[in-house]
Amino acid sequence: MERGLVVPQGLIAQGRGEAFDYLLGEKTTPPALKAERAAAAYLVLAERPVISVNGNVAALTANEVVKLAKSIPARIEVNLFYRTEPRVRKVARLLSLAGAKDVLGTKPDARIPGLDSKRALCSHEGIYSADAVLVPLEDGDRTQALVKMEKVVLAVDLNPMSRTSLAATVSIVDELSRALANIARFVPAMRRNRAAAERVVRSFNNDENLGDVHQYLHVSLRKLRRQT
Amino acid sequence: MERGLVVPQGLIAQGRGEAFDYLLGEKTTPPALKAERAAAAYLVLAERPVISVNGNVAALTANEVVKLAKSIPARIEVNLFYRTEPRVRKVARLLSLAGAKDVLGTKPDARIPGLDSKRALCSHEGIYSADAVLVPLEDGDRTQALVKMEKVVLAVDLNPMSRTSLAATVSIVDELSRALANIARFVPAMRRNRAAAERVVRSFNNDENLGDVHQYLHVSLRKLRRQT
Repeated sequence: MERGLVVPQGLIAQGRGEAFDYLLGEKTTPPALKAERAAAAYLVLAERPVISVNGNVAALTANEVVKLAKSIPARIEVNLFYRTEPRVRKVARLLSLAGAKDVLGTKPDARIPGLDSKRALCSHEGIYSADAVLVPLEDGDRTQALVKMEKVVLAVDLNPMSRTSLAATVSIVDELSRALANIARFVPAMRRNRAAAERVVRSFNNDENLGDVHQYLHVSLRKLRRQT
Repeated sequence: MERGLVVPQGLIAQGRGEAFDYLLGEKTTPPALKAERAAAAYLVLAERPVISVNGNVAALTANEVVKLAKSIPARIEVNLFYRTEPRVRKVARLLSLAGAKDVLGTKPDARIPGLDSKRALCSHEGIYSADAVLVPLEDGDRTQALVKMEKVVLAVDLNPMSRTSLAATVSIVDELSRALANIARFVPAMRRNRAAAERVVRSFNNDENLGDVHQYLHVSLRKLRRQT
């Protein structure tokens, strides 16, 4: 926040995420890993995959985002919920420093239908034309709008009941740095074997997987309670 | 935060609280109400009750704190986790504007044993000599240190597994403005009937009550899941 990457509302959102992470035992659950594998498959199979980056994502995981984008390969687009041009430039600069080439989003030339003014802005070459978008820590309205555009939407959100988690094609309920590292770990195998990636995508059921996350949440709560 | 009452870390803590409140259905559960009644009884029975106020507490509920303090009556002491003198003065001023007389904490002259430097500072007339302290949104170390001083510690904390909730004499797992309003509602009856207040205190079992909170957390989670 002091460097101008994150807004105060971003800190509150971070806190909400921390509470869910704590309740899930601060580790990747089996259903989260399944979702991460499915996300890797979707990203590798996509023709125009894009990773959407906001202030919190950049502050937490700029390096991991760039590494994942290179391995897929995918484009990176800066996409802020509370958009100001100076903050867009700061986030883009941080990603460039982390090794990203051609970060999109600083010169938006398209709009996501159904969102108001600044929230709708995006890059035609990036999110607008993408067939799969990875949206870490995304707002519910934007996730729903991207789904309505018939894109594959891969969300990372620690609240399994958020509108983002409910709307996404693949809902990864995991802490962001673990999620990105796990997706990146699955990418090489998916790239080597597209048929396997297609099988992963076909066999993944997001509703069922979110149900499994809930079961883990109850189990984890009981475990935390016993430790007290 | 913009007015200098709350530090950035306070916003993250606020987010953690919001997540727990959401999971508990954003309403006072029956065990929370029971704890609020017990807290009212303890405060009325105390000879030197004090309400401890930090930046988040002042920003969220300055008016409710002052109203509750007058009805008991209890002293109010400013007690910041990240203490700076300008922030102490701002918090004290906000409480005065809300109608508080003689806010303590601006001139600390005692120390809570077992805490380091600034975190230990308190007022001899207030927290140091208090027999009962209401600590909303308090840190675990300080709660434990106050319990070690053999004070009755009444905590308001939305995480039923936090060190604060585990250490306190009475752990109120509820959103702060609801908690203060509920405590205030119980005060007049407790003042009229000290014998009844004593019975409430004797019959209250904090461990058992925290167990009930857990049960509600599981029930509430299942309800939230069904609504999705």
